[in-house]
Amino acid sequence: MNDTLRKDAEAIIRRAISAVTPANAVEKALKGRRFPGKVYLVAAGKAAWKMAQAAAGALGDTLTAGVAVTKYGHVERPISKVACYEGGHPVPDGQGAAGTQAALDLTRNLQRTDTVLFLLSGGGSALFEKPLIPLKELQAITGQMLAAGCDIVEINTVRKRLSSVKGGKFAAWCAPARVVSIVLSDVLGDPLDMIASGPTVPDRSTCEEALSIIRRYNIQVSPQAEACLRVETPKALPDTEAQIIGSVRQLARAAAEACRELGYTPILLTDQLCCEAKEAGSFLSSILKTHAAQGGKTAFLAGGETVVHLSGAGLGGRNQEMALAAAQGIAGIPNAAVICVGSDGTDGPTDAAGGYADGDTLSALAEKGLSYSAMLANHDAYHALQAVGGLIKTGPTGTNVNDIAVALIG
Amino acid sequence: MNDTLRKDAEAIIRRAISAVTPANAVEKALKGRRFPGKVYLVAAGKAAWKMAQAAAGALGDTLTAGVAVTKYGHVERPISKVACYEGGHPVPDGQGAAGTQAALDLTRNLQRTDTVLFLLSGGGSALFEKPLIPLKELQAITGQMLAAGCDIVEINTVRKRLSSVKGGKFAAWCAPARVVSIVLSDVLGDPLDMIASGPTVPDRSTCEEALSIIRRYNIQVSPQAEACLRVETPKALPDTEAQIIGSVRQLARAAAEACRELGYTPILLTDQLCCEAKEAGSFLSSILKTHAAQGGKTAFLAGGETVVHLSGAGLGGRNQEMALAAAQGIAGIPNAAVICVGSDGTDGPTDAAGGYADGDTLSALAEKGLSYSAMLANHDAYHALQAVGGLIKTGPTGTNVNDIAVALIG
Repeated sequence: MNDTLRKDAEAIIRRAISAVTPANAVEKALKGRRFPGKVYLVAAGKAAWKMAQAAAGALGDTLTAGVAVTKYGHVERPISKVACYEGGHPVPDGQGAAGTQAALDLTRNLQRTDTVLFLLSGGGSALFEKPLIPLKELQAITGQMLAAGCDIVEINTVRKRLSSVKGGKFAAWCAPARVVSIVLSDVLGDPLDMIASGPTVPDRSTCEEALSIIRRYNIQVSPQAEACLRVETPKALPDTEAQIIGSVRQLARAAAEACRELGYTPILLTDQLCCEAKEAGSFLSSILKTHAAQGGKTAFLAGGETVVHLSGAGLGGRNQEMALAAAQGIAGIPNAAVICVGSDGTDGPTDAAGGYADGDTLSALAEKGLSYSAMLANHDAYHALQAVGGLIKTGPTGTNVNDIAVALIG
Repeated sequence: MNDTLRKDAEAIIRRAISAVTPANAVEKALKGRRFPGKVYLVAAGKAAWKMAQAAAGALGDTLTAGVAVTKYGHVERPISKVACYEGGHPVPDGQGAAGTQAALDLTRNLQRTDTVLFLLSGGGSALFEKPLIPLKELQAITGQMLAAGCDIVEINTVRKRLSSVKGGKFAAWCAPARVVSIVLSDVLGDPLDMIASGPTVPDRSTCEEALSIIRRYNIQVSPQAEACLRVETPKALPDTEAQIIGSVRQLARAAAEACRELGYTPILLTDQLCCEAKEAGSFLSSILKTHAAQGGKTAFLAGGETVVHLSGAGLGGRNQEMALAAAQGIAGIPNAAVICVGSDGTDGPTDAAGGYADGDTLSALAEKGLSYSAMLANHDAYHALQAVGGLIKTGPTGTNVNDIAVALIG
C-alpha cells in the first residue's frame, strides 16, 4: 500500500465531511441572521436533532419554541424549548406522524410577523408525514405503484396529494408567517421539490397528472384517497425562502479544497454521479491510467450516489465496490489511488464508510490467496478490502449528503 | 436537436479520425527517413494494404520488395513491388498462412545492412500467422482455453509458442537485418507485445508458464504441440525498433486539437476507457450536468473501447448505446451533447459509426411515441437514434484505433 496516498486520501474525505456536518452548516447559514417576531423551529429528517441543536444554539433567546422529528436513536439529549420526537424510517409510522402533528400544532394560527425556521434533511419524506388517508392504504398505494414500475416523479405526484404536509402544504399551513427553509440535501442536483417531497416548496404537478397516473397504471384507491387526488397543491408560496446548506455539491467542493491544501490540483468531474458502482470505479481507473505517467499531484473528484445491482452473497456497499473495481485498472501504478466514501459514515450493511484501493491492492489480494475477480463479482468488497487494509471507517458522521470519490495521482 | 452542437460534434470526430488514417500516419512516420541497404516491406492486419500503399509511395525506389497480408476484400488494387494477399479474419485460414509464408520467404537469409519495415495493424493476430501445428489443432486448443476461462495473457503465452512468427519470432527470423516496426494499435494502452502477439517484440512469457497453464486448465495437446511449448521465445531482439503511429491516444489528442480549433476547451478524461457502454454514457452525462450551467465552451474527451453485455433483440453498437445512455442525464439541458464513434466507421452490426445525443433527444423520442427506457434496456440504440436523427454515419474509414467519445458544452 502507498502509505502517503492512503493518508492523504483519508485526510481529504475527513475534511470534506466535516465541512458538511449539520451543526457546522446550520451555524454558518444562521450566522448574523435575525428574524422579526416569534421564531418557531421545525426540524425533520435524519439530521433533525443535530440541525435543531445547532439552530437553537444560534437563535438563543430569539427562539420561541420548536419541534424536531428524527429517526429512532437519533435524539442525543433534550434541547431547550424544542420537543424532540423519534419515528420510523424508511417506513413511516405513527410515532413520526405524532411528531409531525406536534409541528402542525406548533405552527397553527401564526401571524404575518412570525417566522418558521424549517430544517430539513434526508429521511424527511418518511419522518415528516401526516397522511390524509390511513397509513395502511398509503403504503398499499405506494406498493402498487412500485410494482407497476412507476418512477419517483409519478409516485411523488400522487403521494403529495395524500399528505397533509408534502407538496408545499406545510408552508401553506404556516401562512401568513414567513417560512425559511434550510436544507441538507441527499438528492442529486438538489431539486427542492423532490427533497422530502418539498413541504415548503410550490408544487409543479397537477391533479390531472395524479389522476392520469392512477388510471394508466390501474392503481386501486379508496373513494377517500381519490377525493384527495382531486385537491390541488399550492402553486405559489410568496413568503418562503429556501437555502441548500449542505449537499454533495458542497461535499465535493470541500473535498476539492482539502485536495488543494494537501498540494493536489483538484479537477471536479461531477457532483451528480449516478451510474453502476463497479463501472464508475472502472471509469476512474481509466482516468488515472491515462494521467498517472505525467506525474504531478492531481485529484479527480466525483460526488453523487452510485448503485449496485446485487447478485451473490458477498458483503459490501456501493463505495467499497467502486474502490475495489478501480483496483484492477490501476494495478501496478505506484502513484495512483482511489477512495470512495458515504458521507454518513455507513456504506451498505457494513461498519465501513467506504473503501480505498491503490496500485498495490491487486497484488496484495493475490498474496493473500484471494481471487479479486470472484470477490468483485460476488459483491464481496468488504472482505476483499478488509484483507488488504482498504476499509475506511469513520463511524456515523451525523450528516448525509451522498458519497464522494477521489482519484489521486501523487 | 441543437444543430450547432451536432455540427461541431461531427466535425470534431471527422477531423480526429482523419488524423489517424493509416496513410496519413505512415506518411508522417516515414517522412525524411532513409534506410541503408535493401528495404523489405511486410504489412499485416486490416489496414495492411493502406499502410503498404502509403509506405511504398514514401519509399519509392528505395523499396526492394514487399508482402502485404490483409482481410478479404481489403486489397484495393495492386501495389508496385508489393505482393498482396487476402486471408481470413477473425478466424485465420490457409490463405492468410500463404501470405505469411510469402513474407517469411521474402525475409529469408537477409544481411545485416538490410531493413525490414514491418507495418502492423489490428487483425494482425489472425492474418499474420503460420502455426507450427495443424491449424485445426491450434483452433481446438484456443477453443479449450476460452472454454476453461483463460484470460488473454494466458492464451497468448501458449499461442506464441505454437506460432512461427508471434512472440518476437518474426524479428528473430529476419536477423541479422534491422527490423523497424510501425504500428497502428487497436489495443488500449498500446502494449507492443499484445498487438498481434508481438511478432517483432521480445517475449516476456516463459515455457514454464505456458506448460503450467496447460496443466492448470487441463488443456489437451498433442505431443507435437507440447514439444513446441518447450521451445523458448526470443528474450532479446537487439536490432529492432518499434513506433506506435496511430492509436486511441493519437485519436483522442487529435479530437482535443479539433475541439480547440472550434473554440472548445478540451479536457482529456482518459484514452483507456473500458467499462460498460451504458454506464460510461451515464458518467459522461453526470459530468455535463455538473458543468453545463457554468456556460462557456468545454469538451470532455474519453477514448477507449467500452463493452456491451447483450440481452434483448435490439440493434446497436457500443458507441450508439453510450450516446443513447447519456441522453437521459442531459435531458432538457440546452447546451449539452455527447457523440461517440468507432474510428473504423462501424459500430456493432450496423451501418452507423456511432451516435449523437443532446438535451432534446429524450423529448424527441417521446414525441415519436418511443420508449427511451425500453429501447435502452433492449440494446436498441440504432432504432432509437435513427428516429431522432442521432445516427452518425461515416462509412468505413480505413483505420481502426478504438473509439472516441466527446461530451460537449457549447
